This record gives sequence, structure tokens and C-alpha cells, in this order.
Amino acid sequence: MTERFKLSSANNNSADTGGACLLDSVRNPSDLKKIPLEDLQKLADDVRKETIDTVSVTGGHLGAGLGVVELTVALHYVFDTPKDKVIWDVSHQAYPHKILTNRRDRIRTLRQGGGLSGFCKRSESEYDAFGAGHSSTSISAALGFAVGRDLNNKKNHVVAVIGDGSITAGMAYEALNNAGASKSKLIVILNDNDMSISPAIGAMHNYLSLIVSSKEYRGLRSVAKEFAKLFPRKTTKMAKKAEKYAKGMIMGGTLFEELGFYYVGPIDGHNMEDLVSILENVRDDPGEGPVLIHVVTEKGKGYQPAESAPDKLHAVQPRFNIVKSIEELEAEAEKTQPDVMTYTQVFAQSLVKEAEKDSKILAITAAMASGTGLDLFEKHFPERFFDVGIAEQHAVTFAAGLACEGFKPFCAIYSSFMQRAYDQLQHDVVLQKLPVRFILDRAGLVGADGATHAGSFDLAFLSCLPGIIIMAPSDGAELYNMVSTACAIDDIPSAIRFPRGNATGFVLPESTGSIIEIGKGRIVKKGSGAAILNLGARLEECVKAIEMLKAKGVTPTLADMRFAKPLDYDLISELADSHEVLITIEEGSQGGFGAHVLHYLANKGVLDRGLKIRTMTLPDVYIEHNTQYLQYEKAGLNAKHIAANILQALGAGEMRSCL
Amino acid sequence: MTERFKLSSANNNSADTGGACLLDSVRNPSDLKKIPLEDLQKLADDVRKETIDTVSVTGGHLGAGLGVVELTVALHYVFDTPKDKVIWDVSHQAYPHKILTNRRDRIRTLRQGGGLSGFCKRSESEYDAFGAGHSSTSISAALGFAVGRDLNNKKNHVVAVIGDGSITAGMAYEALNNAGASKSKLIVILNDNDMSISPAIGAMHNYLSLIVSSKEYRGLRSVAKEFAKLFPRKTTKMAKKAEKYAKGMIMGGTLFEELGFYYVGPIDGHNMEDLVSILENVRDDPGEGPVLIHVVTEKGKGYQPAESAPDKLHAVQPRFNIVKSIEELEAEAEKTQPDVMTYTQVFAQSLVKEAEKDSKILAITAAMASGTGLDLFEKHFPERFFDVGIAEQHAVTFAAGLACEGFKPFCAIYSSFMQRAYDQLQHDVVLQKLPVRFILDRAGLVGADGATHAGSFDLAFLSCLPGIIIMAPSDGAELYNMVSTACAIDDIPSAIRFPRGNATGFVLPESTGSIIEIGKGRIVKKGSGAAILNLGARLEECVKAIEMLKAKGVTPTLADMRFAKPLDYDLISELADSHEVLITIEEGSQGGFGAHVLHYLANKGVLDRGLKIRTMTLPDVYIEHNTQYLQYEKAGLNAKHIAANILQALGAGEMRSCL
Repeated sequence: MTERFKLSSANNNSADTGGACLLDSVRNPSDLKKIPLEDLQKLADDVRKETIDTVSVTGGHLGAGLGVVELTVALHYVFDTPKDKVIWDVSHQAYPHKILTNRRDRIRTLRQGGGLSGFCKRSESEYDAFGAGHSSTSISAALGFAVGRDLNNKKNHVVAVIGDGSITAGMAYEALNNAGASKSKLIVILNDNDMSISPAIGAMHNYLSLIVSSKEYRGLRSVAKEFAKLFPRKTTKMAKKAEKYAKGMIMGGTLFEELGFYYVGPIDGHNMEDLVSILENVRDDPGEGPVLIHVVTEKGKGYQPAESAPDKLHAVQPRFNIVKSIEELEAEAEKTQPDVMTYTQVFAQSLVKEAEKDSKILAITAAMASGTGLDLFEKHFPERFFDVGIAEQHAVTFAAGLACEGFKPFCAIYSSFMQRAYDQLQHDVVLQKLPVRFILDRAGLVGADGATHAGSFDLAFLSCLPGIIIMAPSDGAELYNMVSTACAIDDIPSAIRFPRGNATGFVLPESTGSIIEIGKGRIVKKGSGAAILNLGARLEECVKAIEMLKAKGVTPTLADMRFAKPLDYDLISELADSHEVLITIEEGSQGGFGAHVLHYLANKGVLDRGLKIRTMTLPDVYIEHNTQYLQYEKAGLNAKHIAANILQALGAGEMRSCL
Repeated sequence: MTERFKLSSANNNSADTGGACLLDSVRNPSDLKKIPLEDLQKLADDVRKETIDTVSVTGGHLGAGLGVVELTVALHYVFDTPKDKVIWDVSHQAYPHKILTNRRDRIRTLRQGGGLSGFCKRSESEYDAFGAGHSSTSISAALGFAVGRDLNNKKNHVVAVIGDGSITAGMAYEALNNAGASKSKLIVILNDNDMSISPAIGAMHNYLSLIVSSKEYRGLRSVAKEFAKLFPRKTTKMAKKAEKYAKGMIMGGTLFEELGFYYVGPIDGHNMEDLVSILENVRDDPGEGPVLIHVVTEKGKGYQPAESAPDKLHAVQPRFNIVKSIEELEAEAEKTQPDVMTYTQVFAQSLVKEAEKDSKILAITAAMASGTGLDLFEKHFPERFFDVGIAEQHAVTFAAGLACEGFKPFCAIYSSFMQRAYDQLQHDVVLQKLPVRFILDRAGLVGADGATHAGSFDLAFLSCLPGIIIMAPSDGAELYNMVSTACAIDDIPSAIRFPRGNATGFVLPESTGSIIEIGKGRIVKKGSGAAILNLGARLEECVKAIEMLKAKGVTPTLADMRFAKPLDYDLISELADSHEVLITIEEGSQGGFGAHVLHYLANKGVLDRGLKIRTMTLPDVYIEHNTQYLQYEKAGLNAKHIAANILQALGAGEMRSCL
């Protein structure tokens, strides 16, 4: 469900300095180019105001967008989009870009069903050169665009804008490494937030901080224009080498030089004149190969929250928290309601309780401390908590190493981001039978973040792996127990996947959870005729479906299977033997739980004699952003769909028997 | 099937200088430590000889191991393994390590069924701290070991040995980035092959070459011992900074310094005295944090192939080719038999033929040019070929960018390595409906390389994705046509997965292939009673099974389904309607082709009335290295298993009908 929150914009340093709103005259970048250079900052102020106002209505990522307002204006001013390609990494900072590219009239539909996506999306606009909801893809894609352009003998520019957080991910480095050896001209803008909300993570972050905080930077900030004169680039090899080391000594940046980039920076990302001047120079530079422009910005720039924020957000710290993502704001807002816990919170509380008893329990995440609830774990056990930054692959194999040393690592990564670490999960953990516990939050459909963030495939990509235990809780109490169960599974890998949202009705017990017998489901309600084999959090909808069916005299059995792997073969056989209709349901694609139930029944010969079995899964399409409820409505996985499916299956039988 | 080849060792500079074989006195590292320092090179010579002799019997990776003979001896001499942990990246260079760690008596069983694995394997030896068949995992795992050690208050050392090729992969960088910010002491040895067989790939490679080829390096090589005196590390911050830049200026290495490592190098990796001295210094250094030792070695060091290599290998160039992997040697050997083409060769030839007609076709791979056959493509179209190095994630998203620019990229990556790029495949390509063509070579079981390299899961992890076309050829002719079909599919992503090995009986046609109708299978043989729905290269076994069944009067229908996605629903329905038994067969795990057939039949209501359907897939266990045939024997996917399954299913019906 979309979170709405109101932000006071009273203290914004935005375009309320009198005169008309300049933004009203700008529908797209060609309008923008007509504005005189000296008025661009005024336009930027308007865009900033509009961004804040928009997010106050729609929710979403505010801080990232505000940090790049000037950069966005400058990019569209200097470059000829959409002919020139601008690729926004994890494009949640692209709201200003959307406002300036023909979408201001729809900007207040952001993240709403049928409205604009919260990310760049190729099908949404020709100005969105490449879609991205996951991070660190921009340089790879940009290099593809650049090499393609060269092969096509075209002349357009290609620009990737990537944040300092995103550049910690391996694929960004793979791309830098490849681009650095390429002759294709490519511009990478490293957007370095000088006040990041995340704790400083990783050596790259330290390195960038060192450059930015050095005296030389402060000295050079004022002479950025001078610096721009470095272009066009010198071509003498000797001069280049001398310059390289000189620059490295003074300003850092050699790391990027060593990777083959021409490094320019650091540049003040809120100084419009400097930005335009540097970008023009880089644009007009006839040199080949890649350029990296290191731009320093302030996340959330220009937003001063009201002293007394309304509603849920009153507990939110001023300034600091506004740069958080909507996920974090939502999580915090929900924490103020003690009677409703999210699955995330249940997991975190349960793990903390277990960790109090067992010092071998460690927690690892990849830049999702607050999103996975592990910030709570960190508070209790800072020494036993590891946030490795956006680096899912490393997180998983690091956890494997810890497991080798006899620890009990819990590696918490959203379902869709676990796709980044699939090989490590398979090759480093499962194949070696290491007892790493995977926590896949945000499994199933996730609401406003849409298709890029949906955790649709984990049941398929995990269930095929030999020797992993996969659990999916049907409510908060089950999750609580499953965390305890995962603690106890200390000889092989295990995973728990659960959805975003509330674990309704769960009250935190005093004690730790109970250990569930591996591979054993439970009967929730005994009935006849049809049996529902539920995996995961659709249980509530199953219960509702049974209520609906009562009136029609249909009383299905409801089983909560708990385990996608190993399956409870006895229970499945028993239910198949004693029911005419079997329905499997899961919050995942085909190829997961239902598929493995079918494999079992087929090879056991149970289907030989006929069984009205139906598998309810996510449909074979990507489901756009919307409320979670409406997404499941579209997916056909709500109570009424379950009821209808049961009736139809039973009816099919009746019809057949009438023949 | 294991390739055997004989190598003359006449010209080895090994331990034939008189006296007993020193290696005979060394069973494990504790024996090794008794040898005086001045005799260690002699031991290394023995190990080198033994390694060459072993590989001449077993096949496998020779060059990598020969390059690290001195390093292996020095590591076991200086460190106290297995208490100290040595983690070998892509552990194909670990044969010398195996020889020195209690496994010399079994070393000639390498890669044979029931014998030693071609890689490190935790279950094989306590000296194998971490298993690895995929590259670039060692630093992540080592950091896990190091942090675990610190939490346990233990004092052992942790050493990761990683090659210059492996360090291009993103996860190695993620690990460097995390380790560089960590206080845990960790030793990373960068094994830089100064004569790599691969073309120079990527900026990191260029950077390392620059360090190594600089005059200063040659000057310093002789004073490596002096250099070792740098330890213990200076602690004054100023001194450190000064030293850092001085070293950076003279020797390079600042890149690693900037990532937080203490950089030592480059060191001659074949100078035993230098190696021991540096390793001892690093071991005894009381400083915290990570150290990177840059060691320069020569791949294949000490092997002089005979002037006339016997057998198949006579066409192989001396010296150069011996550092190739067994995959490459096998591929080359097979090329000398014009009447038998591998699937890999069929793919490559077909793609070259298509590319001659269509200049938009590009080929991308990730350090698998020869393994995927794309070296042929490169020969014809060097400008249209891209080997990005070990960087699967980047390869896929780079291809996505090229597709955006209107090209027809073929991205060829082994099935098991595609796991590394799963998120990119899903999020950057499939979700955006970009027409990237994925070529998954080595799908199914792969023989001597064993479980780490098996392509068992791609049908499961691809089939769940909406809007991708997945093909699997049943023979060479089908593959030939499928490549043409993939060229023609220009609006959405597609994939072709095929096995390692021979596409028996295939003769290269003059023309390009024919385009197959999307989602349409074909009847290979019309029969009755039972129908086999085959996907992929088990077709030959299906034909054999039908032969076997003839004697029993059973004449199954055989359908070659061609597409795992979209399924040929009409054909499936038709066969289900007209047969008592349905068997699906695929070279992949559960959750793939068979699972999706079951989903369809279940939800269509076809199973309501009873259908004897069986799914033949890889079993839910990892299958160890062996010949491909014996692996499939173990998997139960050979002709006799198919025949037995059909008989049993038919029999089940008969028995049931007798009741």
C-alpha cells in the first residue's frame, strides 16, 4: 500500500523568490535549452520544489532525487537527449528527470497503479534510455550503448550517472574494468553524496571520502572552472603520465585513472555554472575512451522538514530521515503501532531473541540493514552484524566463510536482490552443504516498487537446488518459529522467504520460538472434497476463501505446508488420497512449490487415477506497480480467486460425472 | 569423457639432477617443514615433475598448477596448514597442493569417477579450506574465515590465492572493497601470470601489466629480499602516506592501497627464497588489516613439450597450448576429426554463417571464447566480438545496451556460469523485453569437471521468467536451425541451451539454418500407448529406448518438443489425449520443462481424468565428476531408464486395470 506523507515545504530555498514559476515553461529538454544559463539555478529550484511536493503526495525516494536536481538540469541543458543517452543507475533519483521530460503532468501518479513508475522505464518514455530498479547496472548498459553507437558510426553521447553506494557492487567494477580498456567514449558521472545516510561502508567509500575531505579539494572547489580548462585532454604520453601522478598526488582519483578512466573531480554538484562548464568541456572533448566525473552532492539537498511533521512522521528526525527511502519511512511509521508488526520486524525480533542465547549467531546484509530489520540486530550485537554494502555476491560467500568457521550466519537479502547472488548461493553454500541461513524478505509482490522489486522467482530458483531447506511462513507466529528452526538447522543450508507487509495479529511472545519438525506441514482446517495446500502468506486469503465457500456448502481442507523443500510427502499423499480436488497456492511463479508437488504426485503414480489438481501461482507476466492487494487481484491469488478455482475444479468433476 | 594425452617430460628442468626424489619423503605439510630452506626448490622441481606426469595421465588443468608450484611449496612451508587456511581461487591450480597434502597416492585418479576432484573440495581434505570451481570467490570466503577467526579469538592465518584473470570479476572487487575497510588480518596473493594465454582483457589487466613491465620492477626484482624488510609495517600515519605515494609512483599498486590493502610487490613467484622471506614477513607482521602480495608467475612454468607430441595433440602448438585447459585441448582435438562436430562447433559455425548475412549480429562472452566456440566468430568478425573477461554480470547488461542500440547480441556463457548473471538476465534483459540471445553451452551434466560445472538448473531458473523463448536442440541440425531462429527473434529475449559433447552425425550444410516456428515441437516417431516428450539432447537415448522396447511390443510415440518456453500446448494436449502414458525428459533439474508441462496439464484439467505422466529429470542430488555417460547412468536418464520407466508406467496401468 502506498504510504502518503505530508512534508512542509515552508523552508525550502526554492523558487518562491518572486516571479512566475520557470518550470511552467519547460515541458521537455528542448524548452529547457531556451533558458539562459544564468536562470538555470532558478529552474532547478522549481524542480526541487516540485519534487518535494510530488513525493509528499506519492511517497517514494526523495533524498536521491533532490541531490541531483542541478545535475539533472545541467545534463539536459548540455546534452541532446533523447538522442544523447543518459542512464540513471537505480533510477529512484530520476524524479527530477521525469519532471523535465514530458511527464510533469503525470508526476503525481508516481508509484500509483496505472501511474508513472518509481524508476526509469523504457516503455514509459524515450528519455528513459535504460530501466533500472536494481543498482549498479548503468555503466555496463552505457558501455553497450557507446560501443553500439560506434559500430553504427553515430555521434551521440552516452552518460551513466551512478551513486557512490552503487559503485561498491561488483558489476559496476566489471563495467569500469571493461570500459577502461575500451576506446569508446563514455561519460560516467559518479554522484558522491557527501552526507550519505548509510554508515560508511567499504574501502571505496573511505577512498572517496578521503578525496573529498582533503584540503586540496576544498581549495579546488572554487577553481572548478579553471579545472575545466584541462580539456581537451593532453595527448602527449609523457605529459599524460606526469599529469596523472600529479593529479593523483593532489586529488586522488588515481584509482579510476588506473582503471583507464580520465578522472575529473571532485566537482560541486550543486554549482550549476561549474557543472555546465565541465559537462560542456567533456562533451566537446575530441578524445576517445571513458571519462569519470566525480560530482559531490548532498542527498536531500534543499529540503528542510517542518518542525512538527504531521501524522506518522512526527517521530522521524528532521533532515536526516527525509533522505531515507519510502521503505524505511514505512518501516519506521509501522513501528509506532505496537499492535501491528511487519514480517520484517517479526524476523528481527526473533533473531535478536535467539542471538541472546547463542553467541554463534551472526547477521549479514548488503545495504539493507533497515529494510531487513537487521538494524535492530546491530543495535543489540554490533560486533556480530555485517553490512557489506551493495555487494550481494560477496555477502553470501562471506557468510559461507563464516559458516566454515563454525558460526551460524543469517544472510538477509530481499528476494529479488538474491538473484544477484544466485551463483554464490548455489556454488559456495548449497553445493558445500554449509549452514548459511538465507532470509529472503520482500518475497512475492511488493506493491509500489513494482516489477523490478518483486520477489517472484525465488521458489523456482531455490527449490531446484539439492539439499537446501526452504520455509515460507503463513503468519507472524510461523515466522517466529521458523527463525528458531533455522537456528537449529546447523548442518545444511536453509532459507526463509516471507512477504513485505504486516504479520497481522502477531503478538511477540516472551520466549524464543518453537522448533518446527523439518518437512512437516500442518492441517489448519479439516474439511472434505477439496484440499488447499498453502505455502506462505496467502493463508489469510485461503481462510477467507473457505468462509466464502461455506454458503455454498463447500468445506475444503486447508493445509499449511510450511516447507517448499523438503515437501511433506506424507501429508500431500494423504490429502490427495482423501480429496477430489487439490489446490496449491504460493506467492511465486510457476516452477516452485506447486511444480514440485506435481513432480512428486506424477512420479508417485498418484495422477494415474485422476486428480483435480490446480496450481495457483503468479501468472507468467510481470505485474506493474500498484498496491499489493491490487497486484494480487491482477495475479488472481486473492480469496475470491481461490474460492472460484475450487468451485470450478469441483464443478469440472460434477460436469464430467454427469456425462 | 576424460581426455587422455601424453606429454613428454624429457626437457623438464625437474628433479633429475641426481639423488633421490625429495617428494618421496613428503606426504603432508609437516614433512615439508622438515626440509631445509635450500632444498625447497628441489622439492618444487619434484612437484612440478609429478604434476606434469599426473596430468599426462588424467587430463585437466596443467598450466595453472605449474605456475604456482613454488608458491604452493612456500605457502605450506611458511604457514601451518590446515590450521592456517589457504583458499585457492578457481582451484584448478591446486594439483601441486593436492600432491603435498596427503593425496599424492591418489593423484592419478584426478577427475576420474570415484577419484580426486579436479578442484579443491572440503569433503575431500581438511587442507581444502574452501571448494571452488567457479572463479573469484576466494577473497570473500577468506574474509569470512578471517572475521570468524577474530570473533573466535583464534590466531591462525588466512590466505587467498587469486589469479589476475579472476580478479576482474565483480565479486572479487566486492570482497576487496569490504576487506579493505576491515581490521581483520587477511593475506591475498594476487597470482599474476606474466604470460597469460588469454588476450589482455580489461583495464585491471593493463594496469597489472604496467606495473610488471615497468623498469622499476625489473630493477626491484633482484632486491625483493630488501623489500621484505619493509615489515613490520610502519605505523606513523605521515610516513605511511609518504611511503604509499612513493611506492605508487615507483611500483604501481596504489589501486590496491586505495582500496585499503597494504600492497607488496611485484615479487618473482618462482624465486623460492624471495617467496619464503616475504611470506614469513607478512605472517609475522603484527599489523592488522589486509595485505596484498602481488606475485608474478609464468603459467606452465617448467614444461617443455616434446617436439612431436603424440596422438591427437600433434596439431597443438608447443609451449603455448600446454597452458590451455583440458576443455580447450579437447575442443581442438575434436576439430581434427571433420566428421564429428561438437554442439559448440555447430553453434559457432551457424552463427558465423548468419553473421555473414547480417552485420547486426554481435557476439559477447566472458572469458569463454574458445570454450563457447566464439574464437571462430572472432576470427571472422573481430570488430563484432567482445570478450569482457570473467565478468558475466557485465557481459549480460552490456549485451542489453547493445540490443537497445538495435544490434542482435549473442551472449554465450556456460549454463553454470550464467548463474552469475541471473539478476542481469532477469532485470536488465527479460523485464525490458530486449532481444538478447543467450547461448548456454555445457547445459546438463558435463563430465570430469563435476558438480561445480554442471548446467543443471538453467531450465528451472529461466522457465519461470515471463516472455523469454527457451530452446533446446535435440541434435546438431536442430541447433543449427535454432541459431537461425534466434537471429530472427528480434523483439524479445531468447535462449538456446545445449550440452557439452558431440552432435553426432551432423554435417554442416552449405546454407544457413531454417527458422523454426516458435513454440512448435515435432513428432519424431508416431506410436501408441506411451508418448515421450523430449527436450534437448536426450533424444538419442529416447530413440535407443524405443529400439529396446520394440522387442516387448511397445511402440511409444516420440516428440521432440524443442521449446521449453513457450510450450507447444497443442502438441502436449494431443499427445495426452491419445496416449495412456506421458514421459517428459530433459537434461536438467526438477522445476524446468517437465514442471511446466505438469502445470499446464493440471490447470487445463487434463489430469482430472487420470494420466500416467512421469517426469525424467536430474535427480535432487549433486552428481560427482565422472564420464558424462556414467553421470547420466547415475542420474537415471539413459535409454534403459527411459524404457524401464515407460514399461513401469504402462504396467502400473495394467496392474491397476486388473484390480
